[in-house]
Amino acid sequence: MEKIAVYPGSFDPVTKGHLDILLRGVRIFDRVVVAVLRNTQKDCLFTIPERVDLLTRSVEGIEKVRVDSFDGLLVDYARGLGAKYILRGVRAFSDFEYEFQMALMNRRLAPDLETVFLMPREEYTYLSSKLVREVARLGGPIEGMVPPPVLRLMERRGL
Amino acid sequence: MEKIAVYPGSFDPVTKGHLDILLRGVRIFDRVVVAVLRNTQKDCLFTIPERVDLLTRSVEGIEKVRVDSFDGLLVDYARGLGAKYILRGVRAFSDFEYEFQMALMNRRLAPDLETVFLMPREEYTYLSSKLVREVARLGGPIEGMVPPPVLRLMERRGL
Amino acid sequence: MEKIAVYPGSFDPVTKGHLDILLRGVRIFDRVVVAVLRNTQKDCLFTIPERVDLLTRSVEGIEKVRVDSFDGLLVDYARGLGAKYILRGVRAFSDFEYEFQMALMNRRLAPDLETVFLMPREEYTYLSSKLVREVARLGGPIEGMVPPPVLRLMERRGL
Amino acid sequence: MEKIAVYPGSFDPVTKGHLDILLRGVRIFDRVVVAVLRNTQKDCLFTIPERVDLLTRSVEGIEKVRVDSFDGLLVDYARGLGAKYILRGVRAFSDFEYEFQMALMNRRLAPDLETVFLMPREEYTYLSSKLVREVARLGGPIEGMVPPPVLRLMERRGL
Amino acid sequence: MEKIAVYPGSFDPVTKGHLDILLRGVRIFDRVVVAVLRNTQKDCLFTIPERVDLLTRSVEGIEKVRVDSFDGLLVDYARGLGAKYILRGVRAFSDFEYEFQMALMNRRLAPDLETVFLMPREEYTYLSSKLVREVARLGGPIEGMVPPPVLRLMERRGL
Amino acid sequence: MEKIAVYPGSFDPVTKGHLDILLRGVRIFDRVVVAVLRNTQKDCLFTIPERVDLLTRSVEGIEKVRVDSFDGLLVDYARGLGAKYILRGVRAFSDFEYEFQMALMNRRLAPDLETVFLMPREEYTYLSSKLVREVARLGGPIEGMVPPPVLRLMERRGL
Repeated sequence: MEKIAVYPGSFDPVTKGHLDILLRGVRIFDRVVVAVLRNTQKDCLFTIPERVDLLTRSVEGIEKVRVDSFDGLLVDYARGLGAKYILRGVRAFSDFEYEFQMALMNRRLAPDLETVFLMPREEYTYLSSKLVREVARLGGPIEGMVPPPVLRLMERRGL
Repeated sequence: MEKIAVYPGSFDPVTKGHLDILLRGVRIFDRVVVAVLRNTQKDCLFTIPERVDLLTRSVEGIEKVRVDSFDGLLVDYARGLGAKYILRGVRAFSDFEYEFQMALMNRRLAPDLETVFLMPREEYTYLSSKLVREVARLGGPIEGMVPPPVLRLMERRGL
Repeated sequence: MEKIAVYPGSFDPVTKGHLDILLRGVRIFDRVVVAVLRNTQKDCLFTIPERVDLLTRSVEGIEKVRVDSFDGLLVDYARGLGAKYILRGVRAFSDFEYEFQMALMNRRLAPDLETVFLMPREEYTYLSSKLVREVARLGGPIEGMVPPPVLRLMERRGL
Repeated sequence: MEKIAVYPGSFDPVTKGHLDILLRGVRIFDRVVVAVLRNTQKDCLFTIPERVDLLTRSVEGIEKVRVDSFDGLLVDYARGLGAKYILRGVRAFSDFEYEFQMALMNRRLAPDLETVFLMPREEYTYLSSKLVREVARLGGPIEGMVPPPVLRLMERRGL
Repeated sequence: MEKIAVYPGSFDPVTKGHLDILLRGVRIFDRVVVAVLRNTQKDCLFTIPERVDLLTRSVEGIEKVRVDSFDGLLVDYARGLGAKYILRGVRAFSDFEYEFQMALMNRRLAPDLETVFLMPREEYTYLSSKLVREVARLGGPIEGMVPPPVLRLMERRGL
Repeated sequence: MEKIAVYPGSFDPVTKGHLDILLRGVRIFDRVVVAVLRNTQKDCLFTIPERVDLLTRSVEGIEKVRVDSFDGLLVDYARGLGAKYILRGVRAFSDFEYEFQMALMNRRLAPDLETVFLMPREEYTYLSSKLVREVARLGGPIEGMVPPPVLRLMERRGL
């Protein structure tokens, strides 16, 4: 049976840290579905279709990856895909606590869905979408933090 | 002299983790006053009177417990009750840091008021009112996470 | 029924942080038994009888406190005393993790025995018996860190 | 060459913990510029000019300190001043994680700018501007938490 | 290509928490090799052959699992097996830090070897081989903490 | 007045992480004395004179640095040197807690001695002398973790 993992997140925008986790994920699973959470985030930089589009361009050439978006419970979405695994990157301590709480809750909601934690490269330890948004808004350079499609769109918009 | 403890919180809604702490608290103190903080939370699910009502129904049958609400400083409220103890549950690390900071501040404001920390059952480690609200909003099942009165009201409202 | 708590530890030596927790404990419980764990610690400064003696002199005048020592499982010792509570001070994060692990294990071994956590004064945050031993061995002053009986014995021994 | 450090923050309001760090900073650096971040904080108590004014009065008599405000990237602001150091206080664990993430990001943006962490007095461990605002809003006493100029302005406003 | 993971540890003794991780691991990988580290632990309860034997009996009936022991560098051992993954359980915060440090070191030594973190059931949060050894030595019951073969051997030895 | 900092540690052996901190330190202070603690560590790899020698060769060419060793209290040693600052690197969370406890104790023993925390490059996050010793003992490559003089001595000894 094909081993499918969901890699859920806001991806606003996708960072090199996300891609690093994704590349590690495809070495473990047969297929990884990167799934943008369609919640109504107040402080967002890109719309959901933009984020899906930027992800799609960013993962181009990585086999076994598909980009999608979802709302509702992650466990329901995963079940619909036939996915048995949730892929998450853990970079830091506060991450870890939140991730554990979510993973335990998801396990309660769907005991057969396993959350798998991977560790990004240490140079991405400080990288988060939120920090990238902040730096970009203040006019700082974000080369090296985000994949080229994100960089290009941000430049086009004068961010 | 009667030993009275205040168990303050938002309780939006009360969870089984809260009740677990409460049941542990009544084994230590002569009386425990569960006190809903009347602050203007943005993201609330239930009104203050609803929360007080749900708590009241949920603690029915537990002796030595009274439900109330308060605003202003917790230490002033406790003093008014003749309470010498604050009861708090600690589940996790981020909790712990916040709880300690609050406890030190309260100790400064009222040195004779002691904060007492208890630990809920480990199966409630991941339970928080916030997570319950999120799961409910996304249509997930919350049986086993909240007491029956909360469950019934949420169902009646189609949550 | 009398509410008895056990305050277990190595107390090698008792510090002002321990006494601070003890004084908070007697405001909650009817009786607190300070119990020196008789394990075979490699790196100890005082023998078990010395520690019991130093504790006894240090708690002189504090009502409702008794000093003892024990070996075997803490939960068995507590049961023998009719104690329903374990008293523990939590100062710091690494503490917290260890304390939680022990408390969960003790709860498994004796579900009716509740671990109650109190917070010492912030100026005792950095105080531990281990640090006191280290400072004393290196010839540093430990006034203000330990109660007078400990200070006197250490001075008599040229520590 | 003169060693200049920037001590950035929101300072809404400046607390005694901030002043403690500042006094430690001037013992290390030739000059410390306290720099109020001009972001659009939602939940602020004082305006930027008020905060600068309160800081200016609070640091009166401390040599080698200058008060300023800035927007944009901190690293750009520091570069403009010829500052080679960022001064930050770390009180607690959650602090620490956020501070590290910011420091790593700033190092990426400006590798020659070093973030230097100092530790405030332990009695200021629980002090944060946010907690001061909360206590003040609930009518609690904030003497001993903030410098006299802040206290006076808050009293004049009936806070 | 077969996906092989190594699950390294001291397993002195194997606990139900270890088995829980193992059962999760076999749902991800094609084969999991449980590998007892042959270092000279001072404080051990069982010899290496005993630990291998207890593990072997404990994993009986779990498909795709093999028990082994190794010394030297984990990355060399994994390479010899053709394993591309290291399986680790993370239960708690101190764990997490140590695990991350080891995983980053192993990644440096063998960049193509991925460490995969799984989370045991929350009731095993407090379970560690060290705690089991301590409880057993103090005469406490360890039913429910270790698999039957460990329990039987400990009973036979009067532990 | 010349600003002198002591950078204390075991340095068994000095790592590239230590040198990174040292290079950051000399940008802040007029002089940094790297001071090897002469305690009787059980598990040491190099003798104190060897460690001093390796440090001396490793810091060759770095101006304003001197290598020394000391025993007794760090605060006494610093006072003897006329040093007003202790330099420490913080890499990780467990570090942080221990460092804070030490810094608070040292502040108590010598209030005018300030502990200054710097952050090494993120690629050195996982580097510790202990981990280097372990990898070396297991025959793993330690290039890139330690400075050349350490590497050469370890190779000569067949480590």
